[in-house]
Amino acid sequence: MAALTHMIDSEVFLAFSTYATIVILKMMLMAPMTSYFRLTRKVFANLEDTKLISSTEDKKMIRVDPDVERVRRCHQNDLENIIPFVVIGLLYALTGPDLSTALLHFRVFAGSRICHTIAYVTPLPQPSRGLSWMVGMGITFSMAYRVIGIALYL
Amino acid sequence: MAALTHMIDSEVFLAFSTYATIVILKMMLMAPMTSYFRLTRKVFANLEDTKLISSTEDKKMIRVDPDVERVRRCHQNDLENIIPFVVIGLLYALTGPDLSTALLHFRVFAGSRICHTIAYVTPLPQPSRGLSWMVGMGITFSMAYRVIGIALYL
Amino acid sequence: MAALTHMIDSEVFLAFSTYATIVILKMMLMAPMTSYFRLTRKVFANLEDTKLISSTEDKKMIRVDPDVERVRRCHQNDLENIIPFVVIGLLYALTGPDLSTALLHFRVFAGSRICHTIAYVTPLPQPSRGLSWMVGMGITFSMAYRVIGIALYL
Repeated sequence: MAALTHMIDSEVFLAFSTYATIVILKMMLMAPMTSYFRLTRKVFANLEDTKLISSTEDKKMIRVDPDVERVRRCHQNDLENIIPFVVIGLLYALTGPDLSTALLHFRVFAGSRICHTIAYVTPLPQPSRGLSWMVGMGITFSMAYRVIGIALYL
Repeated sequence: MAALTHMIDSEVFLAFSTYATIVILKMMLMAPMTSYFRLTRKVFANLEDTKLISSTEDKKMIRVDPDVERVRRCHQNDLENIIPFVVIGLLYALTGPDLSTALLHFRVFAGSRICHTIAYVTPLPQPSRGLSWMVGMGITFSMAYRVIGIALYL
Repeated sequence: MAALTHMIDSEVFLAFSTYATIVILKMMLMAPMTSYFRLTRKVFANLEDTKLISSTEDKKMIRVDPDVERVRRCHQNDLENIIPFVVIGLLYALTGPDLSTALLHFRVFAGSRICHTIAYVTPLPQPSRGLSWMVGMGITFSMAYRVIGIALYL
């Protein structure tokens, strides 16, 4: 790990930057999707929001809708999985892995999270969502294994 | 992108460090605010917490309070928006943007999130909260656009 | 802050990488723990998930269970505390702190979050969980104080 800084100028770091941005953007798109469902289903969490589509505040729109909750759970699952990927992936990119190995990790993770979102929102029958979630976890664990192996300093 | 590492010693990176710390601290302050509302409204999520203000465990305090939920939704919205800003902002700071452009992005984002929190917790009438949220999203998208444009390596 | 890039090759950065990976892995383990409770208690959030343990979709399994919710709140608290630690800790590691001071911060934080999880999931009587949460917050604030002090560029 003598030349860690050199890794920042490597193609691995460029690849990490690209895929980290892609999965973070995918995660951010869950917010407009939630807004879309809230507006079309007329389901809100805050009383002041009901005035966006109604002339007066309407307490009947403060309720829980299964479709809105589904999108929100998908967003929450993204937070719980994509952020660990980004943190571990940054450290992993600095350990100087082979470019091909690193690209394999990043591509499979990005693919698994896109499959996860499709499986969650559609919804597709299980275990499609469970498997895509597990693949993403496996990728992050694999990168963490390398980081711990190389950087271990307790 | 020949001298990415030089960017770490730049003023842009110092500015990023400052604003990232500010918005993360802002996000962390939502936790004591939730505790404050829980203690003053006597509303808890865990049975063992009721003993903090009562001599015996009191099941009646395990309930849902609209004000506590409002602060919690604001905290959740911070998680969903501030963390993407920090991740994309770090990569953005490494792409070597103009200092003035970068400062504009960081300042507007920090301002938009402070407005968002005030609009959410007060609460102010819509669309004040919606607009401040949208400004923050726009800033993060603008930075992501530059990162993808410069670092693209699929 | 003349030689920020040198810090990336320092032992402080290796220590940060190690402890950041440890606490992120701890956070990720809350997901399998939630799955374990969901499967053993037969409590699900999505109708399609009930087919994992039942031959037909069973609406009765779509309910809220106190033990599952407890693990989920613990996971949420990790998101709200461990991610700020990782972000602030990364910037802190670049400010060139003494190795012993940095190690103290990282070790106490990791210890406090492990205590927090045990206190939450068991559950142990308060204020054990409250104190371990407060120690973690204090560590992150202490690191943020140094980052702001050194990197301040508004």
